[in-house]
Amino acid sequence: MDKVTVIMGSISDRETMEKAAEVLDELGISYEMKVLSAHRSPDLLFEYVAQLEGKGFKVIIAGAGGAAHLPGVIASRTLLPVIGVPIETKVMGGLDSLLSIVQMPGGVPVATMGIGNAKNAALMAARILAINNIELRKKLENYREAMAQKIKDIKIR
Amino acid sequence: MDKVTVIMGSISDRETMEKAAEVLDELGISYEMKVLSAHRSPDLLFEYVAQLEGKGFKVIIAGAGGAAHLPGVIASRTLLPVIGVPIETKVMGGLDSLLSIVQMPGGVPVATMGIGNAKNAALMAARILAINNIELRKKLENYREAMAQKIKDIKIR
Amino acid sequence: MDKVTVIMGSISDRETMEKAAEVLDELGISYEMKVLSAHRSPDLLFEYVAQLEGKGFKVIIAGAGGAAHLPGVIASRTLLPVIGVPIETKVMGGLDSLLSIVQMPGGVPVATMGIGNAKNAALMAARILAINNIELRKKLENYREAMAQKIKDIKIR
Amino acid sequence: MDKVTVIMGSISDRETMEKAAEVLDELGISYEMKVLSAHRSPDLLFEYVAQLEGKGFKVIIAGAGGAAHLPGVIASRTLLPVIGVPIETKVMGGLDSLLSIVQMPGGVPVATMGIGNAKNAALMAARILAINNIELRKKLENYREAMAQKIKDIKIR
Amino acid sequence: MDKVTVIMGSISDRETMEKAAEVLDELGISYEMKVLSAHRSPDLLFEYVAQLEGKGFKVIIAGAGGAAHLPGVIASRTLLPVIGVPIETKVMGGLDSLLSIVQMPGGVPVATMGIGNAKNAALMAARILAINNIELRKKLENYREAMAQKIKDIKIR
Amino acid sequence: MDKVTVIMGSISDRETMEKAAEVLDELGISYEMKVLSAHRSPDLLFEYVAQLEGKGFKVIIAGAGGAAHLPGVIASRTLLPVIGVPIETKVMGGLDSLLSIVQMPGGVPVATMGIGNAKNAALMAARILAINNIELRKKLENYREAMAQKIKDIKIR
Amino acid sequence: MDKVTVIMGSISDRETMEKAAEVLDELGISYEMKVLSAHRSPDLLFEYVAQLEGKGFKVIIAGAGGAAHLPGVIASRTLLPVIGVPIETKVMGGLDSLLSIVQMPGGVPVATMGIGNAKNAALMAARILAINNIELRKKLENYREAMAQKIKDIKIR
Amino acid sequence: MDKVTVIMGSISDRETMEKAAEVLDELGISYEMKVLSAHRSPDLLFEYVAQLEGKGFKVIIAGAGGAAHLPGVIASRTLLPVIGVPIETKVMGGLDSLLSIVQMPGGVPVATMGIGNAKNAALMAARILAINNIELRKKLENYREAMAQKIKDIKIR
Repeated sequence: MDKVTVIMGSISDRETMEKAAEVLDELGISYEMKVLSAHRSPDLLFEYVAQLEGKGFKVIIAGAGGAAHLPGVIASRTLLPVIGVPIETKVMGGLDSLLSIVQMPGGVPVATMGIGNAKNAALMAARILAINNIELRKKLENYREAMAQKIKDIKIR
Repeated sequence: MDKVTVIMGSISDRETMEKAAEVLDELGISYEMKVLSAHRSPDLLFEYVAQLEGKGFKVIIAGAGGAAHLPGVIASRTLLPVIGVPIETKVMGGLDSLLSIVQMPGGVPVATMGIGNAKNAALMAARILAINNIELRKKLENYREAMAQKIKDIKIR
Repeated sequence: MDKVTVIMGSISDRETMEKAAEVLDELGISYEMKVLSAHRSPDLLFEYVAQLEGKGFKVIIAGAGGAAHLPGVIASRTLLPVIGVPIETKVMGGLDSLLSIVQMPGGVPVATMGIGNAKNAALMAARILAINNIELRKKLENYREAMAQKIKDIKIR
Repeated sequence: MDKVTVIMGSISDRETMEKAAEVLDELGISYEMKVLSAHRSPDLLFEYVAQLEGKGFKVIIAGAGGAAHLPGVIASRTLLPVIGVPIETKVMGGLDSLLSIVQMPGGVPVATMGIGNAKNAALMAARILAINNIELRKKLENYREAMAQKIKDIKIR
Repeated sequence: MDKVTVIMGSISDRETMEKAAEVLDELGISYEMKVLSAHRSPDLLFEYVAQLEGKGFKVIIAGAGGAAHLPGVIASRTLLPVIGVPIETKVMGGLDSLLSIVQMPGGVPVATMGIGNAKNAALMAARILAINNIELRKKLENYREAMAQKIKDIKIR
Repeated sequence: MDKVTVIMGSISDRETMEKAAEVLDELGISYEMKVLSAHRSPDLLFEYVAQLEGKGFKVIIAGAGGAAHLPGVIASRTLLPVIGVPIETKVMGGLDSLLSIVQMPGGVPVATMGIGNAKNAALMAARILAINNIELRKKLENYREAMAQKIKDIKIR
Repeated sequence: MDKVTVIMGSISDRETMEKAAEVLDELGISYEMKVLSAHRSPDLLFEYVAQLEGKGFKVIIAGAGGAAHLPGVIASRTLLPVIGVPIETKVMGGLDSLLSIVQMPGGVPVATMGIGNAKNAALMAARILAINNIELRKKLENYREAMAQKIKDIKIR
Repeated sequence: MDKVTVIMGSISDRETMEKAAEVLDELGISYEMKVLSAHRSPDLLFEYVAQLEGKGFKVIIAGAGGAAHLPGVIASRTLLPVIGVPIETKVMGGLDSLLSIVQMPGGVPVATMGIGNAKNAALMAARILAINNIELRKKLENYREAMAQKIKDIKIR
């Protein structure tokens, strides 16, 4: 079974990153969650990332705030696709996190989501895994239809 | 053979988006390139996107500038992973393009690259396809090693 | 009777968009309100927009936040004037919404209002309809005089 | 015949604002162009604006840069719809012009276009006038179809 | 006796602008306060501004938020020095107000203060009036010494 | 005769600051120009500022870029009105200069002009001096009329 | 024993700057704390800074907000290394403070920390002092290991 | 002899970083220059950083642009003081580089310089080394005096 890992740079990012976990649960995708800092525990991080492919992980979700190096640093140590989630901060609503994640140099890509949008990180992971997983693709289709239906059901005025 | 499509919102985005094509060529990934606008030719766009899965396309790269709706609009009409490239503009160096692409609502993800960074869009597509393609994964490894070697070879002072 | 439609991308935009409704009520302009998402329910949206002209709608007001594609996507599917309301977000106070709405490409215009300013969207709709409606023009004149009088009546110090 | 006026705050805005004139010409809409400053020639401006309705003008397009008060000041002296065009400056690519035009207070709306996008100002004027002008509406439809066709004709790779 | 007028664009600006009044009181400078909008009550504003010189006013303080045209519009209708106070808003902490006031075109200056800094507006008015008022200059000197003393008296750790 | 001093933080600011000199010349106001840095030659600066009042200077114009402390530092060493001119830089078009000058703490005001707008600094100095100088006030009136006339004379289309 | 001084521009900066004190305490570094304003008490500040080297101070930490001139002004009056801490404000989350501190002209450097990050200012002071202090270097190593261990100990899910 | 290393993330940063070398040469400080990327050659970088202390290096200068992780990543692998230089980019003049460097999390400090200001990085390194080097301190004093003299010698008007 394909697995996803959800890494965050600080325990304070947990509330945001749990939204990724909720979607992964809903879609039946296996995952684990870790707190690992690119700056404060680099060795621990590198050791963890080095073994991901061997253990069957296929996609990495990484959330970080401020000078948010975590997703980029991970992307430099693996060839798995890395999805970055900029955590909201007070500097222009998280623009520091966003730019630190999205403006990666040519050669080392990070698939960046909107500020605080861990939900979409999970859905992007699902789209990637669904390329070779018809069952998951069907679940995504149902998810999308449920979204549309929910909007259709809104009664206003 | 898995295929990638590279869509741009305007012919003026071509110079930027060609950098994706170069990397795809280098990695031996099949692709096609299209100019299709979310605003100026929506029907054409929707028709094109609707048939992508049937034709064996696995990943979509979409570049657009300004109120850059193209990647998000495509993501709302397919379940394939969509990689967005914000094209540089004069408004704060392309911040308008970046925010228009990355700040997608929960439910419809776009994997956003740095401003003008079509090269990384191709590499992200390659990482996604390499999950199930050992040969491509090997090519990515070589690509990465060549990058490191190139830096190692720089003589300065 | 000329009609206006007020569309919002999410039920969470309702509080902001109700301010448009209040002004339309005050000026006696017929309208309806809808929640329809460009990304999460595109088919529903297109179907709705396609029939607006036939039903006598003359002006469309659309509010959305973040990568706020709703007004632009509507403008690409109709020739009626579309008025866009950027909903406030945490990213620099709604700058993401504003840029995503106002920076439309040449060919497909959206008449953009200030961030969260649904009241002015209704007044702009009224100015447009008043071009051919003397009674409504008179109401706008009264509205404007009442504003000035209200300021004149303020006693300070 | 319905007429449009195109006002700019400085002769240096002319190159940008000519793009509005081109579209108005193309659509066969009558217009005149004026240089009038809200700050440097306020009396001249007010006198000009006061007589617009009497002379059969229906829509006002106003372009200005920096502390771009022109569209808002005009909107405070007429009930005709005013379309504002922020002229590009060096401060964050024209963000000063954009915010000075779009962030109008409740009560006095300006329909703001993208930075430097005078072309869309003309198209918005046309959409407004087309509400009661079937011939103009048909021209807009042709204009839109020509845009889509132009994109369809692009051969790339 | 030289007089100052403190004008604000909306009653909601009062709390901010009262800080100017406090300093003017403290320095014994005569002043009056008014709510007058450049957009919602332009005639009232112009009438008021036109008579200021005749009544012995020497300096004008004007506070406004958003598309904050009030100080600039006043400066276009008088030759007295106009001091502008950008009122705080949610768009990047009042950057819209600041840019709308400070980026005046060549020819019509506004002496802009920091966002929400009505206190400094009063002190700038005092510096201007003190050029020809030895008594007031002495008061400013005392004010400055009291500031320094207050800092000197702080005991920390 | 009342005098103005025009100080700049670097010789590279000269081109911008010469625009102040031109207007002062045109209005017949005496002035001198100096290059003095708050950071690189603080003693020189303080010595110069200390003697300004004694020599009959009434208004100080100070231009600086980047972390533009010059106007604020001067304002902390004199009670004369200080007019600040933010010099254009590459960081968001001079936003660093603007914020460093305008966001002064309560107690020490700087009258901030638009980015690069040394012309308006001279006009603000003139407005201040004109409070007690009827002849200069008349010159300002002529200056303003000439501006309006120049706009009136523009023939376009 | 090498000493550090922690200067802040206003008593309101105390809560932020205490975080520097906590780290200095933890690492056993001697320090004193002062409130001294570059604008409101410049003489007091200069007098204090002039005697720092003679008293055995080796590093200066300075925190300020808004037009945050304090660190730069200190750096112009000493040759000791100055570490600047931008205090958070409402303008884009403290971007004004950051730019006012970091954008110093060539010749007078300030070592700038993140917005509100007084903790890192203390750690930077410690790294500087540790160059010639083996004991302190050992303490920094323990500090770093404790950080990594703390992250290792987090149990999540 | 104490040594400094100047590391840059890309050969394209060389022109900017040479300005640090010039100042180090001028002050007679030994240094070496390296191109090493945090993302494209992480192993090379870590190996290089690991041996710096042993070889007698005391201060590290690191320049990088975009998602500029280099200085922070180095700071996580050493206890030497790290001085970061944000390289100018097109995104708001290098704001992406600045925020990616300066907004480091608590625990791992980077002494950030202004955008492109490698000259000040060298001067900050010199100030740090001068704490225990009287000769170098004297050179810094001369450097400072030469700066002041150069400004004193400017003849303008």
